[in-house]
Amino acid sequence: MSTKNDALEALSDLLGPRLNRSDSDRALHGRSEAHFQDMPPDAVAYPETTAEVAEIVRLCRAAGLPLIGWGAGTSLEGHALAPRGGVTVDFTRMNKVLEVAPEDMVVTVQPGITREELNTELRATGLFFPIDPGANASLGGMASTRASGTTAVRYGTMRANVLGLEVVLADGRIIRTGTRAPKSSTGYDLTALFVGAEGTLGLITELTLKLHGQPEAVRAAVCAFDSMAGAVDAVIATIQSGIPMARIEFVDRAAAEAFNRGAGSDWPDAPHLMLEFHGTEAGVTEQMARFAEIATDFGGQDFRWAEKPEDRTALWAMRHNAYRTTLRAYPDSDPLTTDICVPISKLAQAVEETAAEIAAAGIPGPIVGHVGDGNFHALLLPRKGDAVQKAAAVKLASNMAERALRLGGTVSGEHGIGMGKTKYMRAEHGDAWDVMGAIKTALDPEGLMNPGKLLPGN
Amino acid sequence: MSTKNDALEALSDLLGPRLNRSDSDRALHGRSEAHFQDMPPDAVAYPETTAEVAEIVRLCRAAGLPLIGWGAGTSLEGHALAPRGGVTVDFTRMNKVLEVAPEDMVVTVQPGITREELNTELRATGLFFPIDPGANASLGGMASTRASGTTAVRYGTMRANVLGLEVVLADGRIIRTGTRAPKSSTGYDLTALFVGAEGTLGLITELTLKLHGQPEAVRAAVCAFDSMAGAVDAVIATIQSGIPMARIEFVDRAAAEAFNRGAGSDWPDAPHLMLEFHGTEAGVTEQMARFAEIATDFGGQDFRWAEKPEDRTALWAMRHNAYRTTLRAYPDSDPLTTDICVPISKLAQAVEETAAEIAAAGIPGPIVGHVGDGNFHALLLPRKGDAVQKAAAVKLASNMAERALRLGGTVSGEHGIGMGKTKYMRAEHGDAWDVMGAIKTALDPEGLMNPGKLLPGN
Repeated sequence: MSTKNDALEALSDLLGPRLNRSDSDRALHGRSEAHFQDMPPDAVAYPETTAEVAEIVRLCRAAGLPLIGWGAGTSLEGHALAPRGGVTVDFTRMNKVLEVAPEDMVVTVQPGITREELNTELRATGLFFPIDPGANASLGGMASTRASGTTAVRYGTMRANVLGLEVVLADGRIIRTGTRAPKSSTGYDLTALFVGAEGTLGLITELTLKLHGQPEAVRAAVCAFDSMAGAVDAVIATIQSGIPMARIEFVDRAAAEAFNRGAGSDWPDAPHLMLEFHGTEAGVTEQMARFAEIATDFGGQDFRWAEKPEDRTALWAMRHNAYRTTLRAYPDSDPLTTDICVPISKLAQAVEETAAEIAAAGIPGPIVGHVGDGNFHALLLPRKGDAVQKAAAVKLASNMAERALRLGGTVSGEHGIGMGKTKYMRAEHGDAWDVMGAIKTALDPEGLMNPGKLLPGN
Repeated sequence: MSTKNDALEALSDLLGPRLNRSDSDRALHGRSEAHFQDMPPDAVAYPETTAEVAEIVRLCRAAGLPLIGWGAGTSLEGHALAPRGGVTVDFTRMNKVLEVAPEDMVVTVQPGITREELNTELRATGLFFPIDPGANASLGGMASTRASGTTAVRYGTMRANVLGLEVVLADGRIIRTGTRAPKSSTGYDLTALFVGAEGTLGLITELTLKLHGQPEAVRAAVCAFDSMAGAVDAVIATIQSGIPMARIEFVDRAAAEAFNRGAGSDWPDAPHLMLEFHGTEAGVTEQMARFAEIATDFGGQDFRWAEKPEDRTALWAMRHNAYRTTLRAYPDSDPLTTDICVPISKLAQAVEETAAEIAAAGIPGPIVGHVGDGNFHALLLPRKGDAVQKAAAVKLASNMAERALRLGGTVSGEHGIGMGKTKYMRAEHGDAWDVMGAIKTALDPEGLMNPGKLLPGN
C-alpha cells in the first residue's frame, strides 16, 4: 500500500497542473450549498478522459484514499463533501457532447456538461433534454442524485431518461451499462443501480440520455387560489384526470410573498400554481381549457397566461431562482432546505400540516413543490446566529421527514440522502438498507467511493 | 446442513398437500413454452403467504436446495426450469389484489395474479394496468422478466410501472422496496434491481404497480404497406414526430399470411402495421390524421379502422395469438421464437437483414414486432424432426442476436435471458456481467435462487 503522499505525487505526475492541492481549491470543493460544515478533500483532480479517471481511481485505491465525484456543486445534502479527505474528481473538463443521434432521439455526453449547456447544443436538432432540477446542475450529478424537478410530472426523473452509462468502478475497471435501444431485458438493470447511487458505487464518465421532441406548442400560466387546500386539490384532480401536464408547481403564500419581495413580481397574497402545457396547438388548447375548468372548481382565479416565449422564460426563471430570490428576501437568515415526497392522496395533508407547523414555529418557511409528483420543498429561514430558531428549523425538517414516512412516502423526492438524510434510511428502508450495504461492499469493499454518504455504517 | 429429504419433509409438514412431489406436477413445472429440454424440480410448493415463502426459502437453504419462482409458465427462455432440481415456488395461490388506491393510481397485488385478472378487477375504477406482453402472464413473472409488449411504446415497460416490491431474499429476510410516492431519491433503486432479475436475487411476494386512467377515446387500425422498408420507416417517422402512439406493431408478409391461414383474416399479401391511439376524442382524431399522413408518405394504404370495441378486441386478440395462430398454420414445425431490440435508426436494417436471411434459409419465419420500441420477434418454424432445418433455425436466431449487438442494440428487448441467452451476455455486457455476478454473490452467496439463469458461471 502506498502512502497518501505517494498517491498525490503520482496523481500530480499524471495530471500536472490538473491536480490542484491549493487551500483555495480544496476549500471550494469542501463546501456545499446547504447547512453542512466544510469538509475539504486533500486534492482536486480535473481529468479529461475516462482513462485518466480510471488511473486516478487505481492510484487512490492503492493508498486507501477516498474518491468523491464533483459536477456543478449544486447538490443539497452534502453529497460532494469529503468527510474523510481524499481526492475530489471534478468533471468540469469532461463536459462535451460526444454524439447526438437525432434519429434515435438520444445523446451521449460526458458527465461534466450542465443541463443548460446541453440544451443549448441541442437547440438546432428540434430535440431537448427535459429534466430540470432548477439549478444548472451537471448531468453526471443529476444522474448520481436521481434528480428530477419541474418537468418530471411529464417526462419522468433521471431514472427514466438515462439509457446507458460508462462507469469507472472502485477497482478501476471501466464498464458500460445499457445500449441505445429503447428497452432491454438482458440482466440486472445496472443503469438504474448507478442512477441515484450518489457516486458510492463508481464514477460516471459517460451518459447516454433519452431526448424528447421540442413540443409544437407550449403555454404557461400562473393561477392564484383561495386556499392552499384548493390549490393542492386542483393538482390532484388534474393528475387524476390524465391531463398531460408538463409542469404543475405549487407556490405557497409565503413563497409568493418572497417572490414579490425578492424578484419584483406583483402576485396576489395567496397560494399559486405555476403551469406549463406541451403538445400540439389543438392539444394544448384542450389541456388548458380542461385545467381551467378544474382549477375554477377548486377556487382558482386570476389566471395569467404567459403567451410569449420571453414571458414564459421569465416565469420559470423566477421559479428556478426561488431559492436565491427567497434568500434575497430574507438576507439575515441561515437557510435549511429540505424536500419530501408523498403519495398524491396524502399531498394536501402533508403540505397543510407542514405549513401549520412552520407557522406555529414562527420561522419564515416558504413552501414550493413539484406537486404533480407529490413532492414539495420547505425553505426554512431561521435568523442567523439564533440557536433557538436554528434548532426549531432542524426539528421542522425532521418532522417533515417523519411525516413523509407516516403518510407512506419517502424522505426525499429528489434531493437525495448524501450526509443529511442517512439518519432516516433505516426508518424508510428497514432491512433493504442492509441490502444496499451488501451491494456497496460487493462493488467497493474498501469503502473508498464517496464515503460517509447514503449507506449504513457511515 | 439438513438433507434434501429432511427439507422436503419439513416443507410437507409446513404446507401439507400444498407441497406436491408427484411426477405429473413436477413434469408440468419442468417444461417451458420454448425449445428447452424438460428439467423438473424435486417438488412444487404452493405458498399462500409471504411468511410461508420465507419459511420455504429457509428450509431449502438449510438443505442447499435451489428455489425457482413460477407464475403462469409463459416465459420464453426457460426461466422457470429446474436444471439443478430443487423446489419450484408456484404463486398460483398468491393471486389477490391486496389494495386498490384509485386516488394514488396504484394497486398492490400478489405475484400470482395475471394481467387479465388484474384488469378485470380494476374495470370499475376507471383505471387499468397497461403492460401487455401478449400472454396472460402473472405480474410476478412480468416483473421478474422486465416484460413489456404492445403498449410499452406509450406506457413503458415493467421497469417504469413497478413502484415497489416485497421480496423474500435468499436468506429468508423479507424486504420492501419503494413506496407509493411517485418518485424517490433515497438510495439504490432496489425496485429496478429486482425487476428483470429473473428470480435470481429473491422471490417477489408483493408488487405495487402504477395504474393509468382508461383513455377517453381509443381507436385501432390496420394498414398495409407496399414494402417492409416502407412500414418500418413509417414507424420511425411516427415515433420521431412525437405522436403518442399507444400501440404500433409490425407484421411482415409471412405473418400476415399466417394470420390469414390460422385466424381466418383476409389481409392483403403485404407487410402491415397494427395501430392503437389513446387520448381525448379530439386528441385521438388529430393523432389518427397525422399518422395517416405519415403512413401514406411511406406507401401505406388499405387502412381499416376498428371503430367498435369488439372489433378492436378481435384485432388485438389476433396479434396476441400470433404465436399460436402461426403454429396452427404450421402444425408440422418445431418452433423457435426469439426477440431482439435495436436503436430505432437501425430498425429497418435489422428487420430487412433478418427477413432476407430467413428467406434464404428456406424456413418459414414470420416476423412481428413492437417496432415503436425497436423490438421485433422472429418465429422460426423448422420442420419437426428435420435436423438440418433445426440447425439452420438456431443459426438464424444466433445471427439475430449478433446483429442486434452489431447495430448497438440488445439481445433481448423483452423475453429475457433465462437459460437461452446467457451465451450472449459477455458480448453484450463485457465486465458489467461480472458486476451482475458480484451482486448475485453478495445477495445469494450459495447460488440457490433460480440457478443456471442469467449469470456468469452458470
